[in-house]
Amino acid sequence: MSAQLPHAALIARDLIRCPSVTPAEGGALAFLEQLLGQAGFKVDRVIFKDEDTPDVENLFATIGSGKPHFVFAGHTDVVPAGNAADWRHSPFEGEVSDGILYGRGAVDMKGGIASFAAAALEFVGARGADFGGTISFLITGDEEGPAVNGTVKLLDWAEKQGHVFDACIVGEPTNPNALGDAIKVGRRGSLSGIVTVNGVQGHAAYPHLANNPIPGLMRLMSALDAVEFDRGNERFEPSNLEIVTFDVANPAFNVIPARAQARFNIRFNDEWTLDTLKAKITATLEEAAVDGLDWTLEFRRDCSESFLTKDDTLIGALSDAVEASTGRRPELSTGGGTSDARFIKNYCPVVEFGLVGQTMHKVDECTKVADLDHLAKIYRVFLDSYFAVKA
Amino acid sequence: MSAQLPHAALIARDLIRCPSVTPAEGGALAFLEQLLGQAGFKVDRVIFKDEDTPDVENLFATIGSGKPHFVFAGHTDVVPAGNAADWRHSPFEGEVSDGILYGRGAVDMKGGIASFAAAALEFVGARGADFGGTISFLITGDEEGPAVNGTVKLLDWAEKQGHVFDACIVGEPTNPNALGDAIKVGRRGSLSGIVTVNGVQGHAAYPHLANNPIPGLMRLMSALDAVEFDRGNERFEPSNLEIVTFDVANPAFNVIPARAQARFNIRFNDEWTLDTLKAKITATLEEAAVDGLDWTLEFRRDCSESFLTKDDTLIGALSDAVEASTGRRPELSTGGGTSDARFIKNYCPVVEFGLVGQTMHKVDECTKVADLDHLAKIYRVFLDSYFAVKA
Repeated sequence: MSAQLPHAALIARDLIRCPSVTPAEGGALAFLEQLLGQAGFKVDRVIFKDEDTPDVENLFATIGSGKPHFVFAGHTDVVPAGNAADWRHSPFEGEVSDGILYGRGAVDMKGGIASFAAAALEFVGARGADFGGTISFLITGDEEGPAVNGTVKLLDWAEKQGHVFDACIVGEPTNPNALGDAIKVGRRGSLSGIVTVNGVQGHAAYPHLANNPIPGLMRLMSALDAVEFDRGNERFEPSNLEIVTFDVANPAFNVIPARAQARFNIRFNDEWTLDTLKAKITATLEEAAVDGLDWTLEFRRDCSESFLTKDDTLIGALSDAVEASTGRRPELSTGGGTSDARFIKNYCPVVEFGLVGQTMHKVDECTKVADLDHLAKIYRVFLDSYFAVKA
Repeated sequence: MSAQLPHAALIARDLIRCPSVTPAEGGALAFLEQLLGQAGFKVDRVIFKDEDTPDVENLFATIGSGKPHFVFAGHTDVVPAGNAADWRHSPFEGEVSDGILYGRGAVDMKGGIASFAAAALEFVGARGADFGGTISFLITGDEEGPAVNGTVKLLDWAEKQGHVFDACIVGEPTNPNALGDAIKVGRRGSLSGIVTVNGVQGHAAYPHLANNPIPGLMRLMSALDAVEFDRGNERFEPSNLEIVTFDVANPAFNVIPARAQARFNIRFNDEWTLDTLKAKITATLEEAAVDGLDWTLEFRRDCSESFLTKDDTLIGALSDAVEASTGRRPELSTGGGTSDARFIKNYCPVVEFGLVGQTMHKVDECTKVADLDHLAKIYRVFLDSYFAVKA
C-alpha cells in the first residue's frame, strides 16, 4: 500500500505520526530536518523561550543562493485530537483508507508542508542546488498556540542571519471545497477590546443604595453592536464586530453586582486602520455613555492591521500554476480569519495556498491522497515558473 | 461588669457566644431551651431534613393556654463572620465596650430574641402562667440559609400540634437609625427569573456561519429594564426590577458563543400579584424578541407575593408600646427585603419590630446595651397591653 502512495502522501503520513500537539515538537521537526538535510538543505532548529509561555522549537531550512529568495511558511504543530474515541481513524496513525489520508494535521497543515517538501525536493533534484535563487522553509511549532515563540521570532532570527525574502507562500488550507478554489492574497485585521462598567454592589431590595452596572454595559455594547463600519469593497468583506462575551458571574438573585464586563472582536478591512478603528470605537462608547457612568475601554495588544498583497509576479505565477493543473483560475480571496501571513507581510509579499480546509480542527481530519499529489504538482509548476521568471 | 448588664444584654451575650453560623445550632437553641424551660415553658426542639440541604434544628416553646395566642418569631442562626481578622471585636465572644455589645448576630437577631425572652420571662414572672392566653417562641436555625428546613416547616409542625396563632411579631432589626423608627407591617413580593438565548457557536471571522446570542439577550433585558411597573402608592414603594447577572463565560476572543443567560429579580408591591407580574414579563419579552430569536424564560420557584398586615389590635398595641417608651410614633413601613414574615402571614397577622439594623451582616456587628434593655421594655409593655386588650 505505502509503496503506491505518492511522495507527498508518504511525507504527510510520517508527519501525522509525530504527535506534535502545540507546544510539543513530537518528532515532526526532527523528521523534516532529516528529510531536507539529506537533500542538501542547510537546516537550523531554533528554540524560542519566553517567561509566560512554553518553550517552542522551530525550524529554518534553506538551499541555493542569492536572489530571488522564495520562502515557504508553515507549522507542524496541531490542535489537540479532542476525544480520540470520537475518531473513526486514529488521530496520530496516518491511516489511508479508500484514497483518503486521516489524522490530525492532515490539512492543517502537515499535508501542505508535505506537498511543498515533495515539490521542492523534486525541483532541487531536477535543477540542482544552483538553480538561480534560494528556497527556504520557515516552519514553526507555535501557530495553534500562543504564537509568541513562533513565526514572529523566527522571522526576526532569519533577518539577523542575513536572509532577505522576496516572496512567500503560506501552506494553510485555503480552498473551501476543491483544490484550486482560492488563493488568499490578504487578510482582514483583527481588533479586540474589553469594556468594563463599575457600579456599586448592594441588596436587590435596596436599589437606591446600589448602582447596577449591567444596564449601562448593555447600553454601551448595544451601541457598538449597532455600528455599520462599512459595506465592504471589491477587495474585502464588510468589517464586522462580534460581542464575544458579557460576564457578571453573580450567583445571587438578591444582590446587585458591582461590575460587568464585555469583550468584543472586530474583523476589519482596508477601509480602516487600527488607529482609525480605535478612535471610532472610543467615540461610539463616549457617545453612548450616560453622565456619571463609570466605564473603561481597554484594547488588547494582540491586534493586527489588515493587508492586501499586490505582487503580480507572485500571484500571477501561483494562479497560473493552479490553472494549469486544475483548469480553473483561483479566486483571490481575503476572507476568513488571521494567519501567520499577518507577520510575514512585514518582510515580503505573501499569499496563502494549500489543501481543502473542510475538516480542519475537526474529528477525522483528512485529505484526499490525490489532493496531496496534486498540490505538490502545483507547487512544483510554481517553482519552475517563479525561478524562470525571476532569473 | 456582667453584673451590671440588664437581663436582655446578658442573654444576648450568651447567645452570641454560641457560634451558630447557618446551619450549625452552635449551642444557641440548647441555651434557649434551658432558659425558657426553667421559666416553665414547654420546649420542643425539632430537626427538619431534606434531600438537598443540610439538616436544621429549630425550637418551639410555649407557655399559658387558650386564646389569644401570641407568637414571637426569630432565628438564632447567623451569617458567617467573614474574615475574623477584620473585626476589632471577636465575632463570637460577646464583648461589651463603652456600652456597646459586639458580635455576629448582635442585631440580626440574637439581640431581638434576647430582648423578647427577657420581656416574656418578666411578664410570666409577674403574671404567672395563667395570664389569660398563650405566648410561644417560634425559633428557626435556617433563616440566613436555604430557608427550607426552618420557619415554613416549623409553622406546619406547630399547626399539626394544634397551635392556632392570633398574632406574631418577628424580631428582625427594623429600625434604620434609632429604636422606634419603624414597624414593618408588610413586605413587597419577590419574583426571580432566568432568560436564556441560544445561538450557534462559531469562529468570529465567519459570523455568517454562527449566530451570536448576546445582542438578542441584550435586547430582551433592555426591554425588561425599561419597564416602569408602577410608581408606588401610599402603602408601598414602587416595584423595581434589577438584572442581577448576565453571563456568557466565553474565554476566547475569536469564538462566537452558543448561549447567553441573564437573571432578574423584581421586588413588587400590591399593585401586582405573581400572576399578573409574570404575564407582564412574558409579554414584554415576547414583544422585544425579534423573529427567529431562540429564547426561553424560566421563573424561579422561590417567589413570594407582597402582603400588608391590617390588624389594628396588633399594630395599635405595638405602636402604643413604642410611643410610650420612645416618645415617637413609629412609621408603618413596607420597605426593604423579604423575611420569614412572608411565611407567617399565611397563619396569622404578623408585623416586625426589633433593633437598629445598621451593622447587620457587617464586620463588628453591634448594638447599644441600652437598646437591648429598651427593646425588652417595649416588648413587655406590648405584652401587658395585648393580653389586657384581648382578655
